[in-house]
Amino acid sequence: MSGGSPTPHAPLRLGMVGGGAGAFIGAVHRIAARLDGEFQLVAGALSSTPEKSRASAEALGIARAYDDYLAMAKGEARRKDGIDAVAIVTPNHMHAGPAIEFLKRGIHVICDKPLTATMAEARKLAKVASTADALFVLTHNYTGYPMIRQARAMVAAGEIGRLRLVQVEYVQDWLTEAAEKAGSKQAEWRTDPERSGAGGATGDIGTHAYNLACFVSGLTPEALAADLSIFVPGRALDDNAHVLLRFEGGARGMLWASQVAPGNENGLRLRLYGDKGGLEWAQEDPNYLWHAPFGEPRRRITRNGAGAGPEAGRVSRIPPGHPEGYLEGFANIYAEAARAIRAHRKGEPAPEDVVFPTLADGLAGMRFVEACVQSSRRNAGWVTL
Amino acid sequence: MSGGSPTPHAPLRLGMVGGGAGAFIGAVHRIAARLDGEFQLVAGALSSTPEKSRASAEALGIARAYDDYLAMAKGEARRKDGIDAVAIVTPNHMHAGPAIEFLKRGIHVICDKPLTATMAEARKLAKVASTADALFVLTHNYTGYPMIRQARAMVAAGEIGRLRLVQVEYVQDWLTEAAEKAGSKQAEWRTDPERSGAGGATGDIGTHAYNLACFVSGLTPEALAADLSIFVPGRALDDNAHVLLRFEGGARGMLWASQVAPGNENGLRLRLYGDKGGLEWAQEDPNYLWHAPFGEPRRRITRNGAGAGPEAGRVSRIPPGHPEGYLEGFANIYAEAARAIRAHRKGEPAPEDVVFPTLADGLAGMRFVEACVQSSRRNAGWVTL
Amino acid sequence: MSGGSPTPHAPLRLGMVGGGAGAFIGAVHRIAARLDGEFQLVAGALSSTPEKSRASAEALGIARAYDDYLAMAKGEARRKDGIDAVAIVTPNHMHAGPAIEFLKRGIHVICDKPLTATMAEARKLAKVASTADALFVLTHNYTGYPMIRQARAMVAAGEIGRLRLVQVEYVQDWLTEAAEKAGSKQAEWRTDPERSGAGGATGDIGTHAYNLACFVSGLTPEALAADLSIFVPGRALDDNAHVLLRFEGGARGMLWASQVAPGNENGLRLRLYGDKGGLEWAQEDPNYLWHAPFGEPRRRITRNGAGAGPEAGRVSRIPPGHPEGYLEGFANIYAEAARAIRAHRKGEPAPEDVVFPTLADGLAGMRFVEACVQSSRRNAGWVTL
Amino acid sequence: MSGGSPTPHAPLRLGMVGGGAGAFIGAVHRIAARLDGEFQLVAGALSSTPEKSRASAEALGIARAYDDYLAMAKGEARRKDGIDAVAIVTPNHMHAGPAIEFLKRGIHVICDKPLTATMAEARKLAKVASTADALFVLTHNYTGYPMIRQARAMVAAGEIGRLRLVQVEYVQDWLTEAAEKAGSKQAEWRTDPERSGAGGATGDIGTHAYNLACFVSGLTPEALAADLSIFVPGRALDDNAHVLLRFEGGARGMLWASQVAPGNENGLRLRLYGDKGGLEWAQEDPNYLWHAPFGEPRRRITRNGAGAGPEAGRVSRIPPGHPEGYLEGFANIYAEAARAIRAHRKGEPAPEDVVFPTLADGLAGMRFVEACVQSSRRNAGWVTL
Repeated sequence: MSGGSPTPHAPLRLGMVGGGAGAFIGAVHRIAARLDGEFQLVAGALSSTPEKSRASAEALGIARAYDDYLAMAKGEARRKDGIDAVAIVTPNHMHAGPAIEFLKRGIHVICDKPLTATMAEARKLAKVASTADALFVLTHNYTGYPMIRQARAMVAAGEIGRLRLVQVEYVQDWLTEAAEKAGSKQAEWRTDPERSGAGGATGDIGTHAYNLACFVSGLTPEALAADLSIFVPGRALDDNAHVLLRFEGGARGMLWASQVAPGNENGLRLRLYGDKGGLEWAQEDPNYLWHAPFGEPRRRITRNGAGAGPEAGRVSRIPPGHPEGYLEGFANIYAEAARAIRAHRKGEPAPEDVVFPTLADGLAGMRFVEACVQSSRRNAGWVTL
Repeated sequence: MSGGSPTPHAPLRLGMVGGGAGAFIGAVHRIAARLDGEFQLVAGALSSTPEKSRASAEALGIARAYDDYLAMAKGEARRKDGIDAVAIVTPNHMHAGPAIEFLKRGIHVICDKPLTATMAEARKLAKVASTADALFVLTHNYTGYPMIRQARAMVAAGEIGRLRLVQVEYVQDWLTEAAEKAGSKQAEWRTDPERSGAGGATGDIGTHAYNLACFVSGLTPEALAADLSIFVPGRALDDNAHVLLRFEGGARGMLWASQVAPGNENGLRLRLYGDKGGLEWAQEDPNYLWHAPFGEPRRRITRNGAGAGPEAGRVSRIPPGHPEGYLEGFANIYAEAARAIRAHRKGEPAPEDVVFPTLADGLAGMRFVEACVQSSRRNAGWVTL
Repeated sequence: MSGGSPTPHAPLRLGMVGGGAGAFIGAVHRIAARLDGEFQLVAGALSSTPEKSRASAEALGIARAYDDYLAMAKGEARRKDGIDAVAIVTPNHMHAGPAIEFLKRGIHVICDKPLTATMAEARKLAKVASTADALFVLTHNYTGYPMIRQARAMVAAGEIGRLRLVQVEYVQDWLTEAAEKAGSKQAEWRTDPERSGAGGATGDIGTHAYNLACFVSGLTPEALAADLSIFVPGRALDDNAHVLLRFEGGARGMLWASQVAPGNENGLRLRLYGDKGGLEWAQEDPNYLWHAPFGEPRRRITRNGAGAGPEAGRVSRIPPGHPEGYLEGFANIYAEAARAIRAHRKGEPAPEDVVFPTLADGLAGMRFVEACVQSSRRNAGWVTL
Repeated sequence: MSGGSPTPHAPLRLGMVGGGAGAFIGAVHRIAARLDGEFQLVAGALSSTPEKSRASAEALGIARAYDDYLAMAKGEARRKDGIDAVAIVTPNHMHAGPAIEFLKRGIHVICDKPLTATMAEARKLAKVASTADALFVLTHNYTGYPMIRQARAMVAAGEIGRLRLVQVEYVQDWLTEAAEKAGSKQAEWRTDPERSGAGGATGDIGTHAYNLACFVSGLTPEALAADLSIFVPGRALDDNAHVLLRFEGGARGMLWASQVAPGNENGLRLRLYGDKGGLEWAQEDPNYLWHAPFGEPRRRITRNGAGAGPEAGRVSRIPPGHPEGYLEGFANIYAEAARAIRAHRKGEPAPEDVVFPTLADGLAGMRFVEACVQSSRRNAGWVTL
């Protein structure tokens, strides 16, 4: 990473739970983990059956294949060269179980979002984590984008003044039709309350939008009012969420999460306005941050380019004009985790500039989903967060 | 206009109420009225005092200057060569009075939006209009954009299927600071409940967004929940509105109107999604309509270009790639009005393809503002429309 | 226009040569002439035969129809209320003849581009114009765009430093196939050397690009090397031009004009780079000018918005965010002409800030076409301008 | 990679020449090599002195550090577990030497572009390569972008018809001022004829543009005419190149390479037009390909999205809407190389769908630079390619 001198350390040892053949997010985690050479994947319990797990591990060239996560947690904890960290990339209902087992054994956890399928699981996990001698990192990966770091730094520095408005949306179209009935494994579990939890679009992408809005704005949400919809007949979970937000200090916002808006792929977009200026960013064009100081022309700050500060530069790898993307942003979460883990090894706190989403963010996301569902049941009445 | 053969008719005679020196919208109406050669401005009561009115009329080369609108209504009604129509471009509280006087005398009215400052005035005006032998045209000018006509035709033809989502926003920044205390006449009356009515951003631009969403979608709104804010201290009317919408038939929407979002000038943006596709349009780049049939690449339809139909072509003047803008869209309202007025002269109904916003739209806009205020007072509870 | 107080003058009287039924540019001139209320079209010789001319005039409601331009020049010159100016909107080979007849009689000429079909005609016209007591205005209309005025002012003020690079292109697709054989009148005369002159794309749109580059940069072209192509079989004139440019003082440039580039409508785009910054503008999105001071983020200056100066504001009519387009830019040429004509009436020079393309620009354009053809015949060898 | 099942192979062993501390492109190669887990970096001669080389290797955790490339070639060739391939990431004048030494010993070479500093070196290298039992891969990395593969496939399939126009540009601004005198190592060697060769912008980025145009169009260039400039005083090599291109079969093109255009970072942009349609792509927004079938609206094809074919999908890793960037495109070159190397191991030809730039591309690039320089010396006369 630019600015930082490479260090002569060996890669950290990583295990993975979930992410076998056909899984989308497992492959992403694997690339993210190795992109900066910080992690080496050496152990896995990748599928729901021992056979599939072993086959997947072999296919991926992973040294140590386990039948299941418990065997892996126990096995690795016993080894001298056991894994430093585990990536949990299963459907939501399978987050808490493994996370607890690894945390209990002092193995750091890098877990996909949302935190869990249910609030009960989330609380249980939180309790274990609070006493564990291991880190918990939640891959709200969009916080890893350099221009998101830039935006956060600018807000914190007061460059857009006192915040008034937070407009965030995450818009997709892949569930416009009943993909869950047409053989899409991704669609199946993501629309299944047993595996996903109480939120559909809310949980799957709404939590990302919510997390990003909070991460960049630094604001504390106070209450929300949500109008959740199920547009595709037969679906059990919301595929569209319209949410009003109120923040401490008086800022207000809107959050829109949809999986039924044709023409949108991963339209995560954040717009923040204060009394001195505005910031706008879109995930599909992530190397730019638009800054409009009130009364001046809007300017385009480019990643690592003129106007971008050290917070963006530190998590950039290449010069401006050469686009970095989703995988690089995701890898930044892993790189931050690596820095924290290495510090932890030495009994030190993570370096001050290390930033990653934590269990607290995960709980906030769970509360967001829960509140959306509550509000929607009460006809979009306000629910305190 | 393309497709239509020019006709050898003389321009219609137009009068104007309001629009004297310093007014923004008066000049817009004048250009819109003459752009297609359909109207000639021959009479005016342009300002609040007889002296200013006459001076403004003289400066603009208007033949017949009146002291006030009543004198003008009476005077013109008496003349053989009296005006065919009057443009009312005063602040909101001064719409109903003149509109009623002209309508009563059979003079067509082209009135700026919102309809009036109060619902009481609106009802009174509606009553008069219902029995008058004259047309009432409300300049929700954005409905005049060719690609808005295109979008409307595509929705009506079922090209995006059954509608699910209506996302509309109108975002500005000019009231980010207290311009009304810094000498801006525009800001003064627009933030003054006496002159604007109960809505701030809601009335000034929210009504445009609301009207446009309904115009294009063809949907009937059922209820709304609104969270209105006043961010600039000392202001009496909302400068930001967050609104949830529900439509008959199950579609849902969000409407955002803001005058305090730095970096936004006239960010009116409409996005519609159905079960077969999506449409997206932005006023600041109005010559394009984005159409995403579900499962296909999104395509850019250009005004008068490939893929654009007769509804757009009829209100276009020049080839694609040569941008038309706000004034042309505004002029289309006048051109439609002219067609209707000419038909009325012959005792005929307006041609079937003539489209313009009417008193019903104005009442709907008033109800929108009223409902927003009611809802916001009830902590964003739902209000039936 | 913003900033300027409206004056109580009557419209100037305008005649038109050409522009009958089916002509594209005639309708544009008529709208441009009346948009600001500066001209009233009162006389015309609109078509190639007396019958058609009269029919067109009647259809357009033009008071005085003439059989041909000579009759009109003579007739109007005799009248006390004769036309102040004439718009010549015929194909290129019919520019010089009428222009000379009107100029000779002291009637101002507003002529479409390119100046003429042949250099001989151009010289003849120039000779007459040099002694005529009348103005000659060439409608290189793109110079009327506010952000082009803004760019020109910024270059002149040194804001991008010493100029190094001028990249200009005007790209269309409408002649990708042999439209001239498929009944398109526009295509017929524009691909016909008898009516268009020696240049195809070069003359029709290359001259616009060339003029715009010179207008904004203020540079004097020194030499060019051109590679002209005819891609559509059977066509007599170039439909694509690749041109290298050298300017006095050392700046260099590229000009690309094409009518066979599918997906492009009127892609006129200008990019200028100096040792202190860059400017970029595109006609299809004309309300923005991109300014990149070297080493700083690029910024978007909007018409009439923050960062735009008086040169843009003077020729703008409405607030930023409300797009103006092609017709407004074209109308600015007419508005400038009106100011110059009114000054001429009083025996005064045009106001200092009046800017419009003149006969000198027309001659430069003719020389550009001639040089392109010469260069291309010599295998893209350099030709001094 | 999507569509392909992961295989249980161990990573290939990679060495690196150059790429020590402070080098930009070395870090890029390292990430690209490991991104898909296809290569493991195990040996290096990373700097110009033995001391620096060893320090860099240690800092990067590279197992086997060598004093220089010759020692490395010899040493690795002797080892049973010697490297499979070497990445050469030195300045241009240091490409041929190491490439020859490794090729001679049957070690595959992955070399940065341009091929060499001089044509003589290039020929020498080509001679060695032609008889070596090892592959030579040139990292014209932009050919690795999925949407470039998509464009190439569409052209090959005739989707835009017979090609007429190839417009390509690569525009930067980082040499607008004399960075080479201000301490930039990158600028120093890139503006130094001893280390870069005869081309400045021409060699550094012009070769990329030229290669990309040929790669996608499939056309064979026939001749060029180049106008090279040095705008920054004291510079020895061109910092701007204006080039006209002619291709076999009659297509023509323009190529613009500049390092002095403020506001441009890595503006590599390719536009191709045939008699049936057009394609447009920009490196700074690489996940989209614009396709305009003549007479239809232009459409935006997204990487891995609707309308994208297997050629793009095969080199994509993640779903559409999640942007991939420069590093992923670069990694695709490495992944293709890995597939070819693995096939070579088995004595098989590379799979048919494997595509990477070769020595022939390198020679073509060298000839491009040479021809540009020749042409420019002859005042932009045509030079046959």
